[in-house]
Amino acid sequence: MTTLSLIVDNSAGVLTRVSGLIARRGFNIDSLAVGTTQEPSLSRITIVVSCDEATVTQMVDQISKLYCVKSITVLDKGTAKSRELMLLRVQADAQNRNDIIGICNIFEARIIEATADSVMIEFAGDLEKEAAFMSIISQHKILELARTGVIALAKQQYI
Amino acid sequence: MTTLSLIVDNSAGVLTRVSGLIARRGFNIDSLAVGTTQEPSLSRITIVVSCDEATVTQMVDQISKLYCVKSITVLDKGTAKSRELMLLRVQADAQNRNDIIGICNIFEARIIEATADSVMIEFAGDLEKEAAFMSIISQHKILELARTGVIALAKQQYI
Repeated sequence: MTTLSLIVDNSAGVLTRVSGLIARRGFNIDSLAVGTTQEPSLSRITIVVSCDEATVTQMVDQISKLYCVKSITVLDKGTAKSRELMLLRVQADAQNRNDIIGICNIFEARIIEATADSVMIEFAGDLEKEAAFMSIISQHKILELARTGVIALAKQQYI
Repeated sequence: MTTLSLIVDNSAGVLTRVSGLIARRGFNIDSLAVGTTQEPSLSRITIVVSCDEATVTQMVDQISKLYCVKSITVLDKGTAKSRELMLLRVQADAQNRNDIIGICNIFEARIIEATADSVMIEFAGDLEKEAAFMSIISQHKILELARTGVIALAKQQYI
């Protein structure tokens, strides 16, 4: 799994150009997140793809030719901290609510709404922690789920 | 600020079609997040826009005509819980590190990396909490910032 971090112009149509280029080539996107940076005129698009190294090189080459793309960085687990946010509504009543609370405590997930028959959970973590959380919480009935897509920043390299 | 929550086919080109339609009409997107749902064949695209009610109605009408769009829901602060995730690298040394730690504690943000001259912070919250956090943390030097874009799920309605 490879993460591409793009700095692009914050203007209408840029996302369409980038996602259009990827879709036309038939590359498979696992997730895509876009948001503004510390510089309001620039946005960061983070794209996670599952493909071989040669395809990544080709994709980077083509994306970097787009005029609206200021920079593109290839990040992976060794070189970056990555995080995703999820909101989940899970079926919860007197029978299973305490089990859900316990799972949330383990994973530092937050219950942000509780009703008579469900809870809404906010979860943030990397993909490994997310997979572990999902493997347990999915023993309960997941009613709704929204994911942001992964964002990543380069880690400090010591060695 | 209005949030549109779309359930769409999880296939190549869908994001391009949706973002292309919006860009062609010149609608202004504040943020966009896309991720898979509890059903792997479906994705959820969450779009935040700042425009008047008539424009929102027009946008919903046009997006819902796309074949790849299974459903579209209009959410706002009164009807939905919304969250965004940020990763920030902030300049931090012996002079200001404790102030940053204090700010993170107030906002339940997590320091996920610390080096001799910076920290990386993971922050999750709604846009109001995020604006408050940014107004304080930006008194320090923000070196890098990545945002996921907002996701939202409908709240339980009691009254």
